[in-house]
Amino acid sequence: MTNWGHYLNQMRANAPLVQNITNYVSMNIMANVMLAAGASPAMVHAEEEAAEFASFTSALTINIGTLSAPWVNAMQMAAKAANDAGTPWVLDPVAAGATAFRRETAAKLLALNPSIIRGNASEIMALAGAITKGKGADSADSVEAAQEGAKALAKSIGCVVAVTGPQDFITDGATSYGVTNGHALMPLVTALGCSLTGVVAAFAVGQPHLEATTAALAYYGLAGEVAAETAQAPGSFATALIDALHTVTPDILSQAAKVELL
Amino acid sequence: MTNWGHYLNQMRANAPLVQNITNYVSMNIMANVMLAAGASPAMVHAEEEAAEFASFTSALTINIGTLSAPWVNAMQMAAKAANDAGTPWVLDPVAAGATAFRRETAAKLLALNPSIIRGNASEIMALAGAITKGKGADSADSVEAAQEGAKALAKSIGCVVAVTGPQDFITDGATSYGVTNGHALMPLVTALGCSLTGVVAAFAVGQPHLEATTAALAYYGLAGEVAAETAQAPGSFATALIDALHTVTPDILSQAAKVELL
Amino acid sequence: MTNWGHYLNQMRANAPLVQNITNYVSMNIMANVMLAAGASPAMVHAEEEAAEFASFTSALTINIGTLSAPWVNAMQMAAKAANDAGTPWVLDPVAAGATAFRRETAAKLLALNPSIIRGNASEIMALAGAITKGKGADSADSVEAAQEGAKALAKSIGCVVAVTGPQDFITDGATSYGVTNGHALMPLVTALGCSLTGVVAAFAVGQPHLEATTAALAYYGLAGEVAAETAQAPGSFATALIDALHTVTPDILSQAAKVELL
Repeated sequence: MTNWGHYLNQMRANAPLVQNITNYVSMNIMANVMLAAGASPAMVHAEEEAAEFASFTSALTINIGTLSAPWVNAMQMAAKAANDAGTPWVLDPVAAGATAFRRETAAKLLALNPSIIRGNASEIMALAGAITKGKGADSADSVEAAQEGAKALAKSIGCVVAVTGPQDFITDGATSYGVTNGHALMPLVTALGCSLTGVVAAFAVGQPHLEATTAALAYYGLAGEVAAETAQAPGSFATALIDALHTVTPDILSQAAKVELL
Repeated sequence: MTNWGHYLNQMRANAPLVQNITNYVSMNIMANVMLAAGASPAMVHAEEEAAEFASFTSALTINIGTLSAPWVNAMQMAAKAANDAGTPWVLDPVAAGATAFRRETAAKLLALNPSIIRGNASEIMALAGAITKGKGADSADSVEAAQEGAKALAKSIGCVVAVTGPQDFITDGATSYGVTNGHALMPLVTALGCSLTGVVAAFAVGQPHLEATTAALAYYGLAGEVAAETAQAPGSFATALIDALHTVTPDILSQAAKVELL
Repeated sequence: MTNWGHYLNQMRANAPLVQNITNYVSMNIMANVMLAAGASPAMVHAEEEAAEFASFTSALTINIGTLSAPWVNAMQMAAKAANDAGTPWVLDPVAAGATAFRRETAAKLLALNPSIIRGNASEIMALAGAITKGKGADSADSVEAAQEGAKALAKSIGCVVAVTGPQDFITDGATSYGVTNGHALMPLVTALGCSLTGVVAAFAVGQPHLEATTAALAYYGLAGEVAAETAQAPGSFATALIDALHTVTPDILSQAAKVELL
């Protein structure tokens, strides 16, 4: 049994400062999720300061959920500053294939070599399609297709790619893990995927990205399972999930993580 | 007894994609309200993509709560794209009479023929005043005055107008309904009106707008009543409301809807 | 025993309209906090209308948490309009020392003479350092150092300064109060400090600023204590805090306020 709780323990010991350039829908719950998990979030996205802040943060996340031209500029400057500082950054390609503006922005950010990419099957397929000249978001988003796309994307960029859904798939192109923790109420709470991206970034600080990402996904899904023990509808479930992110311990994670080396 | 639950049932069967250009205060809870109800919300407001997205969404909402020049532009482009596609769109004229910027923006959007307008008595009076050269937001916002204004507005634009408050009033200018479902704690939770606008849009997809809007208001107010059975203060009430939006069934709605043909 | 509940009672009787130019993370919870407390919040920040709205609001808050150039412009115009109308306004200098953009914006706003400044020790030290040519945010942020900085800042600007943390310190430069109400879970819920700024502004309407601010901090901390009686993790605690802000009465506040004249 791999000690997945170790990565949670180390994240909490680090309590890393994580800069997030994220969409308006997610900002509040993402900050609450990260605080409950044990990280220190900062939502800093202005052109005037995003790169300066990225030069000293411990990790950075970039989410394209609600874009505008100044933000796209800030995203690129922050990603470059993170790269210059050797700081991990995580790309969350929300609805990457939905409009031309998103496709172009995602391509610009991919070119800046994210450390980790986290998205759902359609989003990862859209990115992979841009790489492999495939059909992108129009593809049938089967788990198998997304897995092949994720591996190709990881190899092409030299990063870790996490495809999240009922079953998560995490790969660096060579080694891959599957995670089956989670609960069916999670997609009924908005921005839980965006928030997870912040948790992944926090876990990645000073830890091997493939295993840290896998541990983050198991931890997050497990918190959903714990929340569902007391809450059966999405409002109370969201509250219970924040509580569970705070109360799940490394030992509990090690015991309850449903991770498979694929 | 009209089968108001039918409209809820049909909305959930459609699970429509609804694009929302809404204010920052409301984005998170509006998405959660719509997910709990059974719709699929997407917050897409950028000038660069709002019209493209509106060309394929099932419904669109436009809320003027937190404006800026680029957003006003995006709102107009999205409304035009929705009109071109024959897609219903709902206007939420937040504080329409409060400042010159809001009055001007509301007038621009009215000129684009919303399918449905949902606001409180003051907001509807402000819009009606712009049409009828009345006193707008300075009018005494009595229910009766708002009802006459709503009818005039509905006739002038050729749309459905919903005035929400302790008693809701819905009209297409010829036929009018009253809805008395609801609870006094609802105004103590921010952005519940904005969120209701999204629910109205979801109900309007493929259904007659007057009855669909009436059913949406009864459903929303009923969820407030159900929430108040277990929660007596605004924090826990907000959580219970999201739960109730998820658990109220078409049958419960048909039994508990308090709707009157006026 | 000072009758601190009097200030809560008066605020609720006023039910003041408070305009907030605040960061995206805080907007929803700040509005919910203010509604639960008994105030009437309006989030109005656009360049096109912020000054017009500030000319008739009862109080104004300005928070630099998520800045952009148009917002900085709107902040300055709104502060000037509030000053012209004799309306109290509260500055919340979020992470004032973190980037050059924030330092410059904070300096511009300080020059417009806020009525009250509310921040944590580091933020107040950063502002005080800009006044006293001290080390600003790089200083060791001890309570004692922040207290001296707060006094110097209050005297220099001619305002009330509130330093919030495990123990709060409120001063007008001559008279100072300490408040020890509060709970350790409060920093684990994002934007509770930002939201408190809105409560302070609501209390300040028509009441002496030093005592009104002190009462607001005692009330807020007490609500945290009440919430912790039923909630032990940050998700349920946030919900219970909103409930407690609604249910705490002036009598309860007078009995449980932990305020000391220093």
